[in-house]
Amino acid sequence: MDSNLKTGFIGLGAMGWPMALNLHKAKLLAAAYNRTHAKAVALAKETGCLAAKDILELAKHCGAVVLCVTADQDVLQVMDALAATLKPESLVIDCSTVSAATAREAAARLSKRKIDFLDCPVSGGTEGAKHGTLAMMCGGNEKAFQRAQPILNALGKRIVLMGSVGAGQATKAVNQIAVAGIAQAITEALAFAEAEDLPLDKVIDVVGSGAAGSWFMTHRGPTIAQGRYPLGFKVTLHDKDLGIVQQMAAARGAQLPVVEMTRVHYRRLLQAGHGDEDISALFRLKRQLFKH
Amino acid sequence: MDSNLKTGFIGLGAMGWPMALNLHKAKLLAAAYNRTHAKAVALAKETGCLAAKDILELAKHCGAVVLCVTADQDVLQVMDALAATLKPESLVIDCSTVSAATAREAAARLSKRKIDFLDCPVSGGTEGAKHGTLAMMCGGNEKAFQRAQPILNALGKRIVLMGSVGAGQATKAVNQIAVAGIAQAITEALAFAEAEDLPLDKVIDVVGSGAAGSWFMTHRGPTIAQGRYPLGFKVTLHDKDLGIVQQMAAARGAQLPVVEMTRVHYRRLLQAGHGDEDISALFRLKRQLFKH
Repeated sequence: MDSNLKTGFIGLGAMGWPMALNLHKAKLLAAAYNRTHAKAVALAKETGCLAAKDILELAKHCGAVVLCVTADQDVLQVMDALAATLKPESLVIDCSTVSAATAREAAARLSKRKIDFLDCPVSGGTEGAKHGTLAMMCGGNEKAFQRAQPILNALGKRIVLMGSVGAGQATKAVNQIAVAGIAQAITEALAFAEAEDLPLDKVIDVVGSGAAGSWFMTHRGPTIAQGRYPLGFKVTLHDKDLGIVQQMAAARGAQLPVVEMTRVHYRRLLQAGHGDEDISALFRLKRQLFKH
Repeated sequence: MDSNLKTGFIGLGAMGWPMALNLHKAKLLAAAYNRTHAKAVALAKETGCLAAKDILELAKHCGAVVLCVTADQDVLQVMDALAATLKPESLVIDCSTVSAATAREAAARLSKRKIDFLDCPVSGGTEGAKHGTLAMMCGGNEKAFQRAQPILNALGKRIVLMGSVGAGQATKAVNQIAVAGIAQAITEALAFAEAEDLPLDKVIDVVGSGAAGSWFMTHRGPTIAQGRYPLGFKVTLHDKDLGIVQQMAAARGAQLPVVEMTRVHYRRLLQAGHGDEDISALFRLKRQLFKH
């Protein structure tokens, strides 16, 4: 292993766990840290990597770090810990979904120690994380992007440098808008199909083969048809991401109709206790439209 | 040619013309009729088929008829003309998008003369029509569906019998809901991307490879990025189809949020004179959200 690419992974959630496994398969995983330590221990047992007790321990063993955490504040805390311990010329790749402003702040905190930073949020769901087929939207300089190639190639299939730091997060915001509207589209369409007593499996097959063809119809249609909403991508997390989108749009004086509508609907799902389900649980609300 | 499958084509519009050409390639096209006769003459010149002066002349030369017209009333007028002239045991395939109720009425008018009917609306845009890769959503009995196979296979790739007469149109309504929401999703997402100064070609590439992957992003994204909205599928026609959807939903006491919102937006496009553009022209409105 190129010792500069001995990689530490921070954040072993629904996305992070399978991503860390793919780094292991690519012989790049050196250490893992997770807030709930038991998960890091479990990964260490499976891969032979170091289960770091804290970020400082992880940083000592790595020339590169990938993180995949939830909140903007978490990202910045991790940056401070990494800035204090990583060697200069190290590389940090943040696969979390946060604001472009947080990405720029993270890069600034690391650059004081001459540590390279890429914001690199992903799309493709837990399936994409597992199969190493994620779409990866990167922001940073060309040199850091080139250095990161072995790591990125272990995690994703479509890997694109969108611009300077923050451009990855801006692109992920675009993605989250598109996913919101497509989820609205497919769940509303399938609720109508159910009300019309159509065979949903055939609807998914044929409608998914035309102009409404979509990842969401193909990957979420079958479970929606069974009234199941397994993860996937949690309502709470998408709602958080759409909040970031709203802030970014508001900064440009814009309100986005699809995003506004989807957050209203998500609030209903959250209030009904469905926040930990996949976003395809929008189908619950669409079905209710037909029940009187 | 199985003389029972000598096929007449009625309605040489943006979809009908390339569909008729595919019937010709499959050696099934015998005659064509179009309200504007010159188009039928042009097709006859290209394929050697008969350019029928009226539906009665077309019907005399065919054992099967495919039609692709715009309005419910047009379909029923054509049915009356066909019922008066086609031989018993003939087959009529209606690829128009109309209500399920119109499909059932059409079948009833033909069944008095023992003529088989399939409602068979399609999806996949002009590209799908041209390449013979349409998704075809059929309603009718199994026997008629089996007889129609050579014709359907010449026109489409995914061909599914959804149920009895009307089930094809109900499925197309599902498709139109899904397309409305996906068009909303992609145009809103790309307008945000433009406002964020992201390179749209790369956005389309990477966002189109993840959970927002969709026919619409792949096929309409590149022209949207150029500020062009070539057909495709006209705003006026999709608006008409969504009107049918609203009626069908209202009959079940439901209002559909994506459909309601999209018709409001289409009204704005129609008022601004953009009704003959592709539905990706929704991007015009989404862009305006960022202009103050």
